[in-house]
Amino acid sequence: MKELGYYNGRIEELSEMMIPMNDRACWFGDGVYEAQLCRNYHIFTLDEHVDRLFRSAAMLEIKIPVTKDELKKLLNDLVQKMDDGDLMLYYQVTRGSGKRNHAFPKGPANLWVTLTPKSINPDTTPVSLITAEDTRFLHCNIKTLNLLPSVMANQKAISAGCYECVLYRPGERVTECSHSNVHIIRDGVLYTAPTDHLILAGIARAHLIAACKKLGIPVSETPFTLTDLRNADEIITTSSTAPCTRACQVDGVPAGMKREDLFMALHDEIFGEFMRDTQ
Amino acid sequence: MKELGYYNGRIEELSEMMIPMNDRACWFGDGVYEAQLCRNYHIFTLDEHVDRLFRSAAMLEIKIPVTKDELKKLLNDLVQKMDDGDLMLYYQVTRGSGKRNHAFPKGPANLWVTLTPKSINPDTTPVSLITAEDTRFLHCNIKTLNLLPSVMANQKAISAGCYECVLYRPGERVTECSHSNVHIIRDGVLYTAPTDHLILAGIARAHLIAACKKLGIPVSETPFTLTDLRNADEIITTSSTAPCTRACQVDGVPAGMKREDLFMALHDEIFGEFMRDTQ
Repeated sequence: MKELGYYNGRIEELSEMMIPMNDRACWFGDGVYEAQLCRNYHIFTLDEHVDRLFRSAAMLEIKIPVTKDELKKLLNDLVQKMDDGDLMLYYQVTRGSGKRNHAFPKGPANLWVTLTPKSINPDTTPVSLITAEDTRFLHCNIKTLNLLPSVMANQKAISAGCYECVLYRPGERVTECSHSNVHIIRDGVLYTAPTDHLILAGIARAHLIAACKKLGIPVSETPFTLTDLRNADEIITTSSTAPCTRACQVDGVPAGMKREDLFMALHDEIFGEFMRDTQ
Repeated sequence: MKELGYYNGRIEELSEMMIPMNDRACWFGDGVYEAQLCRNYHIFTLDEHVDRLFRSAAMLEIKIPVTKDELKKLLNDLVQKMDDGDLMLYYQVTRGSGKRNHAFPKGPANLWVTLTPKSINPDTTPVSLITAEDTRFLHCNIKTLNLLPSVMANQKAISAGCYECVLYRPGERVTECSHSNVHIIRDGVLYTAPTDHLILAGIARAHLIAACKKLGIPVSETPFTLTDLRNADEIITTSSTAPCTRACQVDGVPAGMKREDLFMALHDEIFGEFMRDTQ
């Protein structure tokens, strides 16, 4: 198949796939998800993503209807059905179905999967960023389907011809971007926001920190501000689909780009791991 | 029909209704909605709800694919298909369909409607409330499908055997409940939170204020705190499906219930209007 949709055991071409109107995704965005890359039919960092899905679900009292091992087997089996092995793997679990009612339903949760063609991009061309106030809820540590503020922030970036929108809370504390974590290098140290309820504990973020440690780059998990961002030596965004991206501009003003040596070392380490693990 | 589902022109029994997996409701909760009562095949306060839907959509740059008049005609036509004229009317508009991507899609928005049996309940038995921190996003003035914190707060109320969960921001400022507005009477004055980005400008709230004015009860649209709530003479919740409900308990402690005269006068005024307008 070229683009696959899976829902509770049914499999169809994604564009043809229909799901029940009464799934609680439709009324409340009542679910959690993961998105990650697959190359050569090998899913990268599957264990870490599945663990996080289960953590997200537990925080919202959603009971995932399969075990971790069953889910991993299902995802690997679905990948084998695809025409090409370079893919975006997306999956979500929603809190069951039923007539619209805030109260939790009695029935089981629903399991959704999509597979679409996607290749990792090792390009190191720097990107531009804009900034916007972070108006999201206080559960950003949970990877939920309540993504409207992220959609709006991302569209703001697109409208400005930029790659991402950096979000900040009162006091100009940088949290993360609309669908990436953001980090800075200053005086040879990588600064990244701590994993509290204001950011998602990105798996690419964890791999960036691991790469720093391997390369002897000190890491400080402390909040930084918009001023720190604008004055940084390097600005790096990470996500599971774009694991190490460099920024050269913030709100139209040149920024970062002063430690190419460190950025390239981190980039090569991160992409090297990806290519090795998906051979 | 007993329970109707409508999606972009298709009509089916709600429990059978299927919608495309690629509707953006499924990935982002990317839509806005309204819910309201219908009695004797008469939709109550239709103009006000349709106006609010268009305002919600405009704030999120969602283009509703019909005019206000077309939408009202559709909703009235759908109501005529039902076996019984006492109904919950629910409708939402989602930002189109397409492979999951934060960026706005090119295609048109999708229009959803459901109709299910529901009668208004004029019962004046008082209810119990709990309280919880308001952790929602800062767009509570927009009636969106990003409702996970409301779902969790409502479930917390249910687990405690209560009717609703009163939410508060830092400083113990009361905002609203998980799916209702909340108001207090103190020294003969009705206090209700102002309509900023922290609450939904409830249509039942507007009718409560109008009833106060008709009855000569002063209204102050100023923030009040949890302490004010606990010490109030009366506590009233309003929503389009439960337009005037009285509370007798907050977090297990007796509260309110000191101005039955004012509560009953407001209740009779509000239900009287509903019954007249849906004869």
